[in-house]
Amino acid sequence: MSAVSVHGVGTSHFGRQPDQDLVGLAAAAVSEAFADAGTDRVDAVWVGTVFGPAGCGPRVLRALGITGIPVITVETACASGTVAFAEAHEAVQSGRYGRVLALGIEQMSTAFDGAITPEPTDPEGRSGLAMPALYAMAAARYLHLGMVTLDQLAAVSVKNHAHALHNPRAQYAGKYTVEEVLASRMIADPLTLLQCCPTSDGAAAAVLAPSTGSGREIRVRGVAFRSGEAWNHRSGHVWGHDLVRDTAADAYAAAGLDDPGDIDVVEVHDAFTIGEIVTTEALGIAAPGEGGKAAATGVTALGGAQPVNPSGGLLSRGHPLGATGLAQVAEIVWQLRGQAGGRQVEDARLGLVETMGGGVSVLDGNACVVTVLERP
Amino acid sequence: MSAVSVHGVGTSHFGRQPDQDLVGLAAAAVSEAFADAGTDRVDAVWVGTVFGPAGCGPRVLRALGITGIPVITVETACASGTVAFAEAHEAVQSGRYGRVLALGIEQMSTAFDGAITPEPTDPEGRSGLAMPALYAMAAARYLHLGMVTLDQLAAVSVKNHAHALHNPRAQYAGKYTVEEVLASRMIADPLTLLQCCPTSDGAAAAVLAPSTGSGREIRVRGVAFRSGEAWNHRSGHVWGHDLVRDTAADAYAAAGLDDPGDIDVVEVHDAFTIGEIVTTEALGIAAPGEGGKAAATGVTALGGAQPVNPSGGLLSRGHPLGATGLAQVAEIVWQLRGQAGGRQVEDARLGLVETMGGGVSVLDGNACVVTVLERP
Repeated sequence: MSAVSVHGVGTSHFGRQPDQDLVGLAAAAVSEAFADAGTDRVDAVWVGTVFGPAGCGPRVLRALGITGIPVITVETACASGTVAFAEAHEAVQSGRYGRVLALGIEQMSTAFDGAITPEPTDPEGRSGLAMPALYAMAAARYLHLGMVTLDQLAAVSVKNHAHALHNPRAQYAGKYTVEEVLASRMIADPLTLLQCCPTSDGAAAAVLAPSTGSGREIRVRGVAFRSGEAWNHRSGHVWGHDLVRDTAADAYAAAGLDDPGDIDVVEVHDAFTIGEIVTTEALGIAAPGEGGKAAATGVTALGGAQPVNPSGGLLSRGHPLGATGLAQVAEIVWQLRGQAGGRQVEDARLGLVETMGGGVSVLDGNACVVTVLERP
Repeated sequence: MSAVSVHGVGTSHFGRQPDQDLVGLAAAAVSEAFADAGTDRVDAVWVGTVFGPAGCGPRVLRALGITGIPVITVETACASGTVAFAEAHEAVQSGRYGRVLALGIEQMSTAFDGAITPEPTDPEGRSGLAMPALYAMAAARYLHLGMVTLDQLAAVSVKNHAHALHNPRAQYAGKYTVEEVLASRMIADPLTLLQCCPTSDGAAAAVLAPSTGSGREIRVRGVAFRSGEAWNHRSGHVWGHDLVRDTAADAYAAAGLDDPGDIDVVEVHDAFTIGEIVTTEALGIAAPGEGGKAAATGVTALGGAQPVNPSGGLLSRGHPLGATGLAQVAEIVWQLRGQAGGRQVEDARLGLVETMGGGVSVLDGNACVVTVLERP
């Protein structure tokens, strides 16, 4: 088993880019990742995409001049990008391949206008329980239990949109007030428009290889992937909480990490504001019922004790499904190298990425990947 | 590195089953594979599907009561099923997981009527170079070079439909003459309807685990996967030939197999009659330009020296894309165990599976998997 490091990362711009295509988006991410890694030679590629057409992985790579090596396309809903990362990590760690590219690609603006249309085979979605409604139910439960306030929900949006002001690749950014967030159009009560991730096109990539001790490398200290965990309706927690908690426990064990409080910078799956709150609690970064407060009081803001989503997160950087996980990885790598510009977390040494994938049915098929990255 | 064996296989029926769904198809395949393996416990699942909706892998498995374990869905066009198999094999061989399920699922009858509709982003397909046309060009080239005759092309269809008479799970079967095959409706000159695979729904599964020496196990002697190989237009060979040849060379090396003539029974990707002919030549089972003759003279028929597609192949058993590779594996496992009934190849000890995946664009994104299986 080799120690594995991220040797290079890259991303496209994120946003509605209907005039772009998967090849153009991938070209931006891959060329930057290769330049960053100082090589354009890899032995295999894992591609994460949800809505990419059949066979698109090899086709996109061929257009970039990458042929003659194994290409495996994986799909695990919103976690597709970090599953590609996790599989690439496994391949390097086991010695199966020497240097591997993980690539996430998604173009959603040409397929969807608003929330992802439920599949005809998804009874929950067709009954109205699409993604925004699912997260809204979690938010309503939190409100009912007194575990969050409306203002705290909105504070996550305020924080992440403000973070994105320092991220030139982000889809949306802005200085909003809690009142403005709450006054934006209602999408799924209590979640307003500014509390929902946008429709995004984008790509992100990472080059993984054995650690060599070079100063630029960011070490993968632990990766964990769980899937196929249906929501246990009898759990005292809302949808997603227990899967994040259990996956994080695996990742912390793999990383030999005793205290989540040691993590300096975090990117989590804030597809909706309540998502960040539940996730920070499930990760052990905030105590139960304290995730909203952490956002509202600045604990998870840039300059706070444990900044969460300095990139702007899915809410503001954008959420091109298959690319999201690798965009999160890229952000943490930049943070740990001190390359994050105006959104830099000072002297960040230990970082974490969490991605949550819902399935075709919001209640089934979810997947979670948690990765701990470290500047050696 | 553990020696890996197939401990159990199962499939659904194959055919147009619009009243079925992915869950029902998968249930048939998985329950048979679990019963065959004598266990319903696996540590991870790889799912191959091309057109399954986002997140369908975990969702289908949950409906079968399989939750709480990693599920990774892979897509590599028509080779998706055997890529799931190859990844499952890698996971067991490397010790990553102890026992793994590889599952292929596809429902095409509810999505397509006839050939797969080209994607809007596929310029070749939209120009008319859909799959039947691509294979037709290969056939025309073979005819032009005198490497095959129309009768020999038809003989593949005659042979495989006759084989399927002994396969109760096959979609189509029948005693046809060469004249009847040639007289069936023209699809893409020179390929007539009976020379093209049908629109199919189905599922197939295999349970892989370390070899224990039990008599029922079928050993995986070698697996090779290649992808991302664009067709070299300057090659003297038709589309697909060189990729099959190179992947087979990798598989033979992995299996320590010197002479392809030692293989007793073969399942190859006969999506169209010319496909079987080119593939048997690329595999080294027939000499260049002799593949058609081998079918016409009975060399590759049941009772011949090296039977090819005893199941009926894609032409007759059917071709539910993501399930096909694992249906081929199931057939070879049954053959090597002596469980193939009226289509049994006598005393088969060494078998081979070849699957070819075209991409969203017929010229790009292809993938090939070749597997050598052995009765210990």
